Amino acid sequence: MKLPAGFLASGIAAGVRSGKGPDLALLVAPDGADAAAVFTRNQIQAAPVTLSRNALRASRGRVRAVVINAGCANAVTGAPGEAAARKVRARAAEVVGCRETEVFLASTGVIGKLLPADKICDALPGSWARLSTGGLEAASQAILTTDAGPKLAEARFSVNGKPSRVVMFGKGAGMIHPNMATMLGFALTDAAVAPRFLKVALKRAVDASFNIITVDGDTSTNDTVLALASGAAAGPRIDGGAAGEAFVAALTSVCEKIAWLIVRDGEGATRVLDIHITGARTEREAGLAAHAIATSPLVKTALHGGDPNWGRVLAAVGRSGAKVSPTKVAMHLGKLALVKDGLPQRYTEKTAAQLFSKERVMLKVALGTGRAEARRLSSDLGHDYITCNADYRS
Amino acid sequence: MKLPAGFLASGIAAGVRSGKGPDLALLVAPDGADAAAVFTRNQIQAAPVTLSRNALRASRGRVRAVVINAGCANAVTGAPGEAAARKVRARAAEVVGCRETEVFLASTGVIGKLLPADKICDALPGSWARLSTGGLEAASQAILTTDAGPKLAEARFSVNGKPSRVVMFGKGAGMIHPNMATMLGFALTDAAVAPRFLKVALKRAVDASFNIITVDGDTSTNDTVLALASGAAAGPRIDGGAAGEAFVAALTSVCEKIAWLIVRDGEGATRVLDIHITGARTEREAGLAAHAIATSPLVKTALHGGDPNWGRVLAAVGRSGAKVSPTKVAMHLGKLALVKDGLPQRYTEKTAAQLFSKERVMLKVALGTGRAEARRLSSDLGHDYITCNADYRS
Repeated sequence: MKLPAGFLASGIAAGVRSGKGPDLALLVAPDGADAAAVFTRNQIQAAPVTLSRNALRASRGRVRAVVINAGCANAVTGAPGEAAARKVRARAAEVVGCRETEVFLASTGVIGKLLPADKICDALPGSWARLSTGGLEAASQAILTTDAGPKLAEARFSVNGKPSRVVMFGKGAGMIHPNMATMLGFALTDAAVAPRFLKVALKRAVDASFNIITVDGDTSTNDTVLALASGAAAGPRIDGGAAGEAFVAALTSVCEKIAWLIVRDGEGATRVLDIHITGARTEREAGLAAHAIATSPLVKTALHGGDPNWGRVLAAVGRSGAKVSPTKVAMHLGKLALVKDGLPQRYTEKTAAQLFSKERVMLKVALGTGRAEARRLSSDLGHDYITCNADYRS
Repeated sequence: MKLPAGFLASGIAAGVRSGKGPDLALLVAPDGADAAAVFTRNQIQAAPVTLSRNALRASRGRVRAVVINAGCANAVTGAPGEAAARKVRARAAEVVGCRETEVFLASTGVIGKLLPADKICDALPGSWARLSTGGLEAASQAILTTDAGPKLAEARFSVNGKPSRVVMFGKGAGMIHPNMATMLGFALTDAAVAPRFLKVALKRAVDASFNIITVDGDTSTNDTVLALASGAAAGPRIDGGAAGEAFVAALTSVCEKIAWLIVRDGEGATRVLDIHITGARTEREAGLAAHAIATSPLVKTALHGGDPNWGRVLAAVGRSGAKVSPTKVAMHLGKLALVKDGLPQRYTEKTAAQLFSKERVMLKVALGTGRAEARRLSSDLGHDYITCNADYRS
């Protein structure tokens, strides 16, 4: 996959995770790009998150370089951690030839470990030398942690008839790795997008994608999604309207693709539960019900076993905090009715088991108390999750 | 263990779970007992929960008989489920010779299955015939589902120098079985306790025991804790004061013991995490932080592996909704400081791993934002949990 016009990238081994391959990605927009970002809402935030948020504000949303390392989250590292991140940022600005506030940082890896700034500073000239328009694969490789493979997505759209592209790369084996500082995503477009609209577009795309996936309910100290618009396609500047909607659709599409890859790649995961709540009093309550199902270990283990044990789903909904009508609640697996008006329906167990064993299992619960809806994607909970997480650090 | 004076019990096989041993417990207070109960807060509530709540109100807290079955939760069974429960209750009142509202019902087992009322009605005369002062063990056996063994506890206290006892039996392999309709507990005392004070005492005891344990965050449709006071010890009626405190302490002690047995018996569990949150702004926030740690699959798998991966604990606290100070947060494992003023401390990994591998692991997190505290007990998440729950019903 090629980078959109206006971007160069590279991915090399800087030795942050010794002997484990590439761990440093550099992304450069030689003429700069308009940027918008969303960050983790966790109160414990890593140094790169704090610095990048402030830098974006100081540069009024302009970014020239993005430095991403795997192998160390640089979170819970206090003042030394911030100093290490600042050192990397200063060196990157020097190498790329831009202001420090135009450098965006992202780190992923174990929490509580100080960033080895010197190793990264020493490697940056090499990163710079290897920058190319074909560097997307190398960059997408260098940011992975326990991911099964690189996560890339692409979408095309047009602005007043002029073709443009959005390309996204990301990492995250589900949100199952807060200690790994979990998910990162970088969306790049050659279109010109007004910064204020870019922000709105990113918020809409993320709400429809990364904000509906769950592997284990944990969020990390480093989660970051960054959108960059180089404007190199030389089309008109997007600031809403039909072109704006086309851009939002393309951006949402790449975010959805990366989000799907993340939840599908959840450790030990063999299938994805696509949860659709309807008939809730409010969107918030619909979200609570969907979240309770998506994070219930009992539902997730039943999903792993392909066992359509719907009593666990109802029990989760009943404790979720969302108002549910015991005499109106209904549940469907695909088109098969399991529960209607609060009562079990007749169906063959074999049909239900088949529907509950697909790669994507469609589950719909109608609460019977209103008209609001919500959706969540969740992965199953299997032995490999335990194996991977019971002794992750050793 | 002997029943307190004023109670008789039996446990027999009624065939609710065919061929799987005893499944029907009958408890009788021939002269009646004052009663207080707490029920699940799940909005999906089983027929016995609804009936028993209303019966307690109608009888003004007097109970003569308790009928408990395993093998079927009689939840999500609608009007037929309620009719089945009423049938059992009517027959029990006939056999015991009391009012229907003096019969308390509890059921545990799979959700969505209708109670086989006829089997239970046919068996009740046999239950009645086998009632004895030595029937506690048999009754405690008959209510078990996947429990490793019976759960019994006893405490002594005195009222104005007169000795009394509280005996409790319960079931629940953690709260990991909402589909099993999870935990039941029955506390019996020979003391006389004013109904209003019994209610207060039970609430205090449950808040300090069953309400702080978590196996997987799920709650069930059938959870019930019942306290019965026969007054057969012929002491003065307890209604607060020093005797009241002695009674609350004894009741809390048996509740804590049964709660410990439940969380320790969580499927696949090999150890218990004793979580103590301090320095929170409010009790509610302390509870949120403790709950986030107690239900985090990442913390629970690390616990299973004996890996003191404290980054996962901090990440859980950071997303819990409780205000935490990133520069003041501290964490201790036993007496070992892991984090202080938001920074990792020096310690040997081996010492931390030993402390994190005990049967009861003591973890303390100080949020640095106030003075409120909370406590939770949680079990680890291991392979046997997956094995047990991935295909429970087959």
